[in-house]
Amino acid sequence: MDSRFDNISPIDYRYSPDGPEKELLSEKARIVYQLKVEAALAAGLARYNICPPQAAEEIIKACRKISPDEVYKEEEKTKHDIRALANCIRRNVSDKAKPFVHFTATSEDIKLTSESLRYKDITQQFIIPQLKELEKSLIEKALLYKGTVQTGRTHGQHGVPITFGFALSEYVSRLGARIEKIAGSASELRGQMSGAVGAYNASSLFIKDTEKFESELVESLGLKRSQHSTQIIEPEYLTDFMHSIISCFGVIANLADDIRHLQRTEIAEVAERFEAGQVGSSTMPHKRNPWHFENIKSLYKEIMPRMITIYLDQTSEHQRDLTNSASARWIPEILSVFMFAVKRMTKHLTNLMVVDKNMLRNLELSKEMVVAEPLYILLAYHGHPDAHEYVRKMTLKSQKTGRNLRELAMDDKDIKRYLERFSGAQMDVIRHPERYTGRSENKCMQTCRYWKKRLEL
Amino acid sequence: MDSRFDNISPIDYRYSPDGPEKELLSEKARIVYQLKVEAALAAGLARYNICPPQAAEEIIKACRKISPDEVYKEEEKTKHDIRALANCIRRNVSDKAKPFVHFTATSEDIKLTSESLRYKDITQQFIIPQLKELEKSLIEKALLYKGTVQTGRTHGQHGVPITFGFALSEYVSRLGARIEKIAGSASELRGQMSGAVGAYNASSLFIKDTEKFESELVESLGLKRSQHSTQIIEPEYLTDFMHSIISCFGVIANLADDIRHLQRTEIAEVAERFEAGQVGSSTMPHKRNPWHFENIKSLYKEIMPRMITIYLDQTSEHQRDLTNSASARWIPEILSVFMFAVKRMTKHLTNLMVVDKNMLRNLELSKEMVVAEPLYILLAYHGHPDAHEYVRKMTLKSQKTGRNLRELAMDDKDIKRYLERFSGAQMDVIRHPERYTGRSENKCMQTCRYWKKRLEL
Amino acid sequence: MDSRFDNISPIDYRYSPDGPEKELLSEKARIVYQLKVEAALAAGLARYNICPPQAAEEIIKACRKISPDEVYKEEEKTKHDIRALANCIRRNVSDKAKPFVHFTATSEDIKLTSESLRYKDITQQFIIPQLKELEKSLIEKALLYKGTVQTGRTHGQHGVPITFGFALSEYVSRLGARIEKIAGSASELRGQMSGAVGAYNASSLFIKDTEKFESELVESLGLKRSQHSTQIIEPEYLTDFMHSIISCFGVIANLADDIRHLQRTEIAEVAERFEAGQVGSSTMPHKRNPWHFENIKSLYKEIMPRMITIYLDQTSEHQRDLTNSASARWIPEILSVFMFAVKRMTKHLTNLMVVDKNMLRNLELSKEMVVAEPLYILLAYHGHPDAHEYVRKMTLKSQKTGRNLRELAMDDKDIKRYLERFSGAQMDVIRHPERYTGRSENKCMQTCRYWKKRLEL
Amino acid sequence: MDSRFDNISPIDYRYSPDGPEKELLSEKARIVYQLKVEAALAAGLARYNICPPQAAEEIIKACRKISPDEVYKEEEKTKHDIRALANCIRRNVSDKAKPFVHFTATSEDIKLTSESLRYKDITQQFIIPQLKELEKSLIEKALLYKGTVQTGRTHGQHGVPITFGFALSEYVSRLGARIEKIAGSASELRGQMSGAVGAYNASSLFIKDTEKFESELVESLGLKRSQHSTQIIEPEYLTDFMHSIISCFGVIANLADDIRHLQRTEIAEVAERFEAGQVGSSTMPHKRNPWHFENIKSLYKEIMPRMITIYLDQTSEHQRDLTNSASARWIPEILSVFMFAVKRMTKHLTNLMVVDKNMLRNLELSKEMVVAEPLYILLAYHGHPDAHEYVRKMTLKSQKTGRNLRELAMDDKDIKRYLERFSGAQMDVIRHPERYTGRSENKCMQTCRYWKKRLEL
Repeated sequence: MDSRFDNISPIDYRYSPDGPEKELLSEKARIVYQLKVEAALAAGLARYNICPPQAAEEIIKACRKISPDEVYKEEEKTKHDIRALANCIRRNVSDKAKPFVHFTATSEDIKLTSESLRYKDITQQFIIPQLKELEKSLIEKALLYKGTVQTGRTHGQHGVPITFGFALSEYVSRLGARIEKIAGSASELRGQMSGAVGAYNASSLFIKDTEKFESELVESLGLKRSQHSTQIIEPEYLTDFMHSIISCFGVIANLADDIRHLQRTEIAEVAERFEAGQVGSSTMPHKRNPWHFENIKSLYKEIMPRMITIYLDQTSEHQRDLTNSASARWIPEILSVFMFAVKRMTKHLTNLMVVDKNMLRNLELSKEMVVAEPLYILLAYHGHPDAHEYVRKMTLKSQKTGRNLRELAMDDKDIKRYLERFSGAQMDVIRHPERYTGRSENKCMQTCRYWKKRLEL
Repeated sequence: MDSRFDNISPIDYRYSPDGPEKELLSEKARIVYQLKVEAALAAGLARYNICPPQAAEEIIKACRKISPDEVYKEEEKTKHDIRALANCIRRNVSDKAKPFVHFTATSEDIKLTSESLRYKDITQQFIIPQLKELEKSLIEKALLYKGTVQTGRTHGQHGVPITFGFALSEYVSRLGARIEKIAGSASELRGQMSGAVGAYNASSLFIKDTEKFESELVESLGLKRSQHSTQIIEPEYLTDFMHSIISCFGVIANLADDIRHLQRTEIAEVAERFEAGQVGSSTMPHKRNPWHFENIKSLYKEIMPRMITIYLDQTSEHQRDLTNSASARWIPEILSVFMFAVKRMTKHLTNLMVVDKNMLRNLELSKEMVVAEPLYILLAYHGHPDAHEYVRKMTLKSQKTGRNLRELAMDDKDIKRYLERFSGAQMDVIRHPERYTGRSENKCMQTCRYWKKRLEL
Repeated sequence: MDSRFDNISPIDYRYSPDGPEKELLSEKARIVYQLKVEAALAAGLARYNICPPQAAEEIIKACRKISPDEVYKEEEKTKHDIRALANCIRRNVSDKAKPFVHFTATSEDIKLTSESLRYKDITQQFIIPQLKELEKSLIEKALLYKGTVQTGRTHGQHGVPITFGFALSEYVSRLGARIEKIAGSASELRGQMSGAVGAYNASSLFIKDTEKFESELVESLGLKRSQHSTQIIEPEYLTDFMHSIISCFGVIANLADDIRHLQRTEIAEVAERFEAGQVGSSTMPHKRNPWHFENIKSLYKEIMPRMITIYLDQTSEHQRDLTNSASARWIPEILSVFMFAVKRMTKHLTNLMVVDKNMLRNLELSKEMVVAEPLYILLAYHGHPDAHEYVRKMTLKSQKTGRNLRELAMDDKDIKRYLERFSGAQMDVIRHPERYTGRSENKCMQTCRYWKKRLEL
Repeated sequence: MDSRFDNISPIDYRYSPDGPEKELLSEKARIVYQLKVEAALAAGLARYNICPPQAAEEIIKACRKISPDEVYKEEEKTKHDIRALANCIRRNVSDKAKPFVHFTATSEDIKLTSESLRYKDITQQFIIPQLKELEKSLIEKALLYKGTVQTGRTHGQHGVPITFGFALSEYVSRLGARIEKIAGSASELRGQMSGAVGAYNASSLFIKDTEKFESELVESLGLKRSQHSTQIIEPEYLTDFMHSIISCFGVIANLADDIRHLQRTEIAEVAERFEAGQVGSSTMPHKRNPWHFENIKSLYKEIMPRMITIYLDQTSEHQRDLTNSASARWIPEILSVFMFAVKRMTKHLTNLMVVDKNMLRNLELSKEMVVAEPLYILLAYHGHPDAHEYVRKMTLKSQKTGRNLRELAMDDKDIKRYLERFSGAQMDVIRHPERYTGRSENKCMQTCRYWKKRLEL
C-alpha cells in the first residue's frame, strides 16, 4: 500500500483514530486477540492435564509471535481463517505440542470470545474514558453558565426562560446514563468454549464438567461464559452492547444539532472557535460554519442505521449460519466512528464560545410574551375561572396593538382584583420575566453534582 | 364506522389482539391514562395545599367520566389535544376547581407520564405473562425431547449430533434473558411534572422543593421521575424499552425461522398441526405450509425497522420539538404486533408435532461423516501430529470410494497404533456416532431448570 | 366495533384519510380488487373456450356481490384467505360454474395482481392529483415571491442573497421530478396468471400460449404482465414504486423542515395561520407552534424506515416463501400516511403567511458581510493575486473593528487600483448587497414554467 | 502505514477490490476527479473570455499533477478541503492565472459534480460490465439446465415440478431488469456550476446565460446539469442511483439464499466447488460449507440498511447544511462491497456443481403428492363440482393409508366417470408427475433469449 489515500473507507483515510486506540481497532488486533484465546485454551488444557504443561507453554509462546501477515498468507491456502491461525501456531511448536493447538475448539470459540474480549477492552480502555472526558467538559460548561439566562425553546419558538447551564445539564444527565449503559453492556460481553455445535461434543470426551472448564477458561481472560451456546454465543450480549453505543451516539447527535442551531446567524448564542488560517467557505470568505457539529451529526447518520444489521445478525439458522460473518467485521468501524465523534465533540465543546449578550438579546424578543405563562398561572391560582383563555386572547391583542401583555393586563379593570392578590415575589416575575427561570440553576447544579460523584469525575 | 374492514392498518382489521390487552392498546386507553395523570396532579396540588381538597376531589371525579369522543370533539376547536382534555375536565367541575385543572403542568407532563404508565402496565399485565407462557411451553417441549437425537446443523450442513431438547434450550435461554430485559426496561419508564421547559418555572411559584413534589406525584402513579427533564422526559428510557421489545422479537423470529426450515419437505423433522378443514394452498390441495411461522417472521420484518424511528426520535431540538409526536403514536401498534406474534408462537409451538423418526433418518445421512470430528480429536490426543489434515483427506477419499470413514481409518496401518490407544468409551463414539451428542441432554436440563426457577414458572 | 377509538393504529383513529381515497385504502378494497381479478380470470377462460360463457357470466356476477365479512367468516374455516374467497364465489354460482372459479390460478395470481391494480388506481386517482395540487400551490407561492429578497442560508449561516421564490422553486423542481417518478413506477406495477410455481403447470394443460393468455388477462385489467414469475411477480416492480413514494416523502419532509426553521422566533420569516380558537401550548398561551410542519416531519420519520421492510421482502426463498405476507399488508398504511402528509402540506403551505419585512430585517444582519463574495470575486477578476485570502482577513478585521467590510476595502490604498477597474454594475453590487441575488428570479420563473407545462397544471 | 492490517474497515484489509476498479474507488480518485472539474471550469471560463486562454491552460496543466498528499497537507492549514485543493492549484500557476482558479465556483460545484462523474464512470466501466458477466453466467447455467427437472418449492414445501433452468431464469430476468435500472440511474447523475447558493450570484456578474455556461461545462465532462440547484445538486439523482444498487444487491442476496438452501445436507442439489487444500471447519474435517454464498448474504446485510442514510441525506436545510458531508464519503464503500459481492457470485455460480440425480431423488419424495394439483384441475375441468376439496381429503387419506394418491383416485368409483373424460396427454401427467413441469423449459429459453439480446451479451 502506497498511502492511506489508496483506501476506500473514510475511517481508514480520513477519520482514523489518532490515539493508541487505533491499534486495538485494527485488523491486526483481531488476530492478536484470537491468539490470546488460543493461548488461554492451551493453558486450560494443561490445567486439566489434557495436554502436557510443556506443550501448553510452547503454544502460549508461539501465540505471542505470530503476525497477521503470516495468518492471511496461510489463509490463501486453507480458505479458512481460524484453520490458518491454528496452522501458523502449529508450525511454531514441536510435534508433541501440535495436537493440542486449537484442541476441541471450534472456530467460533476463538473468534467470538476474542471479539468479546477486544470490544470490552476497547470500551474500558478508551470509550469510557473518552466519554467521561466529554461528560467532564459538559459539566464544566454547565456549571460555568448555570446562571446565564437563555430563552427556553420548544418547537423552535421561545417558551419561558431557562439558563444555558440548565440546557447543558440535560446532556450531562443523558450522557451520564448512557456511559453507565455502555459500561454495563460491555461488561456483559461473553466468551464460550463449547465446541462445534455448543454441546461440548469433543471436550466431553476428556472432561467431565465441561461448563466448569469453559467458565474457568473464559474467566482467565476476564470474561463470563455465555449462558447457553450453540456454535455461537447468544447474540443478544452484542446486540445490547451495540444498542448502548448507538443510543449514546443519538444523545451526542442531539447535542450537535442543538449547538448547530444556536449558531444560526439570527441566533448566534454560541460559536465554534476558528483557527487563524481556517476557511469557512471556498467562495464566501466571511463564512464561519458550524462544520464540526455538522460533521458529528453526519457521522451519526452514517452509523445509526447499521443497528439494522445488528438486529438482522441476531438470527442464525439452527446451530448457526455464517451470514453474520462478514457483517460482524464492520463493528470496529462503528466503534471507531463513534469514538471519533466523541473526541471531536469534546474538543469543540470545550472550545465553544458562549455569547451571553446574544442570549439576552434574543430573550428580549419574546420577553413580554413570556409573561403569558406566569400571568395565566397566577391568575388561575388567585381565582380567575378561565385564565388560560383570557391570557391567550390578550396575547393576540398584544400582537395586534403592539402594547405589551403586562400593560394590557394591568390596565384591564376586570382582572385588577386578581392582580392585587399577587405576592411581591409573584409580581416580581410578572415585572421581570427574565427572572422567571424557575429552578434552572438549582437543577443544573444538582444534575452536575450527581453525575460528577456517580462517575467519579 | 361500519366494520373493521373499513380500517387500513392490519392491526385493526386482521391481527387485532383477541384478549383484554386490546383495550389497553387502543386510543381510548391513551386518553384514560392521561386522565389518570391529571387526577394525580390534582391530588398532588391538594396535598401541597395549593388547591382546596374539594376542588381536587371534583377534578378526580371528573377525570373518571370523560370519554375519548368528547375529547376529540373538543380538539376540533382547540387543535390541541391536551388543551381539549383540560377543557373537558373543566366543563365538569365547579368554577372554584376550574383553575386547578392541569395547573402548572405542560402537555408533555401529562402525555409522556401517561404513556410511560400505560406501557408499563401493558408490559406487566400482558407482555411479561404472555412471554412467560411461551417460555413455559418452550421448556416443556425442550424437556420432553431432551434426549431425542437430532443432527446439529451449521451453515445448513450437518455438523455433529445434538438433541432436539438442546436445540430448543437455546431459545429457553435467549428468551429468558429477554424477558428480564423487557421487565427491567419497562420498570425504568419514567414520569415527569416539570412544566413548560422542564425547569419547574410555573410550579416553583408555589412550591419550594419542586423535585420532591414531582417525585411524589409520579410515585403515586407507580413510576419514578425522569432524572432530568426539559419539556420532555429523557428519551432513552423509552429507547431502551423499545430495544428490549425489538431484540426479543428477534429471538422469536429466529425460532420461527428454525421451525420453518425443519419443516422443509426433505427435512420434515417437525410439522404444524393442521385443522380438519384447513387449506394449505388454493391450487395444490396437498400442501401443508408452515404459514404460522412464516407469518411470525413476516410480522418481525414489518416491525423491526421501526427501531430506526425510535432512534430518530431520540433527537429533539433544544427543550423539545414536536417531530416525534405523530411517530410516537405508533408505539402501541408495535407492541400489539409483538404480542400477536408471541401468542401465535406459543400456540403453534405447543401444537408442534415432532417427527423423531425423521430426525434419526436425517442423521443417518451424515452419520458416518460425523465420525470425522471425534476421530480427528482422538487421533490428535493420542499423538497424531497432523490429525485434522489426515481426517480431512480421508473424508475426501470416503466420498470418492463410497467406503465409510471409520472403515477407511481402521484399515489404515499408519494409524493403527493411535487407534489402539483409544479407551473403550472413546471407541464407542467412533462406532456409534449417534451417541456423540456431548452434553446436550445435560445442558438442556440445566438451562430449563435455571430459567424455570429464575422466572418462577 | 364501537368507535374508532377502539383502534390501535393512528391511521385508523386519527390520521384517517378524509376523502374518497379512504375506501380504496381499506381492507374492504383489497377484497373487492381480488374479486375483480377472479372475474377477469373467468372472462379469460371463456374467451379461450375453457369454460362455458354462461359459467363465466355467473362468476363475474357473483364477484360483484360478495362482501369482506363473508370472506373473513369463511376464512375462519379454511385458514386460507384466497380459498375462502373462492369458496364464497362458488357458493354463489351453479354447479356448472363452480369448477371454473379460480381455475388454474394460484392465490398469488389473484392477490398480487389485485394489489398491483389497486396501488396503481390509488396512485392515478388520488396520489398524483394530490401531489399536483401541492405542486400547483408551490408554484403559485414561488411566483408570488419570485422577487422577494431573502438571505440564502448554508450551514444555518447567512450566505449570499436569493429570493424566497427561488428557495421555493427548489421544491417545485424536486417535487415535479418525484411526481413523474411515482407515476412512472406505478404504471410499471405488474400482474401475473402463471400458476402454482410460475411455470403455468396447470394452465398449460389447456392452453398452448399461456403467456399470451396471461398477457391478455392482465391487460384486460389495465396491467402488463410480470416479465417473469415464480409463484410471485418479480418483487422489484413494487420495490421501485415504494422507493418513489418514500423518496417523494423525503422531499416533502425537507420542505417541512425548512418551513419549521423559518418560523423560529428569531427568524420569523413565515408563519402558520392560526385559527381563532386554536391553542399553541397548554401552558404557554402565547405560543404559535409550527405544529403542522412538525407533524409532517414526524409522519415521515415513522414511514421512511419501512423501506427496510420492502427491501427485506425482495427476498423470497425458491419459488416463494410467505414471509412477506403479513408485512405487505402494511403498504396501504404507508400510502395513507403519505397522502395524509401531502394534503396537510398543501393546506398549510397555501395558508402560509410570508413576512417579507422580516426577510429584509434578517438580511440586514449580514448585509455588509455578504459583500465578501462579490468583492473577492471582482478583485480576483481584476487581477488581485490572492483575493480570497485578502477578503477573508478583512472580514476578521471588520468583526474586530466594527467597521464594515466595504469601507475597509475602500480605504485600503493597496487595493484602490483594483477597485477602479470595477464597472458601474459591479460597483453597484458592492454598494447594495441586497441586489446581489444573481439569477434567483429568473431561475424561479424558468423552473415554475417548466413544471407547469410538463405536468399540465 | 505499515500494512493493510493496520486498517479498520474490512473493505480496506479484506474485501478490497482486486482489479483496476480499486483505483477509481479510492480516496485518491476523489481528488483526481475534483481536479478534472476544476480544469473543466478553467476551460469554460476561457471559452467565455472571462479568463485568458493562457491562464486556463496553466490551470488545466496544474490539475494534472497535484497529488492527494499535497491536498491533505494543505487542508491541515485551511481546515477546508476544496480551499486546500484550490490553493494547491494556485501554487502551480502564474500570478496571472491564480485569480481564475475555482473562479465563481462554490466547493459543492466541484465536489458534487466530480462525484457524479466518478460514480458514473465506476458504473459504466466496472459495475455494468461485471453485472453483465454475472448475467451471462446465469444465462449459460440456465440454458444448460433448462430441461433438468427439479421440485418447485414454496414455503419450503414441495409444490409442483419445474426445471432448474426455469428456477435460474427468475434471476436472469430480475438481474437483467436491475442492470438496466442501474445503467439508467447512473446516466442520470448530474453536475452543477451554480455558485454559493445556486443562484449563480458570482457567475452572473460576468455571464448572461449562466445556465448555458453551466450546461456546456458539465456536458464537457459528460454529464447533464441538475434541473435546479441550491448550493447542492438535487439529492434525488443520487438517491435513485443508490436505490438501484441496493435493490440489485437484494436480487443477488436472494439468489445467494436459494443456493445456500439447495446445499443443505438433506437437499444437496448443488454444491460449491472446494479447492484441494480448502478447509470447511476448524474442528469438523468433513464439512463443506456454502460459505461464499453466506458471505454474499452477509455483505448484503451490512450494506442494505445504509439506504436509510441515503434517505436521511435527502434532507438539507435551506440552501444546504453539511450533515451529509461525512456520510456521503461512505458511498464508495457501498459500491465496493456491492462489486465484491457481484464478482464473488459470478465466480462461484460459474463453479457451482449441479447434482441432478439429487434433484430427481428429492422429487421422488413428493412425486405422488404432486399429482394433487393436475388431478384437482382436471377433475374440475371435467365437471367435478368440488374437486379441490375432494383431492385435499384424498391427500389426507393417502398420508394415513400410505397408498398413493393416484391409486386412491383410480380406485374411487365416484370419480371414475370424470377420469374417463381425461385426454391421453392429461392422463400422462397424472401417471408421470415428473413431466408436469408446465412451460418451464420454454419460459427459461424465452427469458434467456430476451435478456441476451437486450443486453447484447
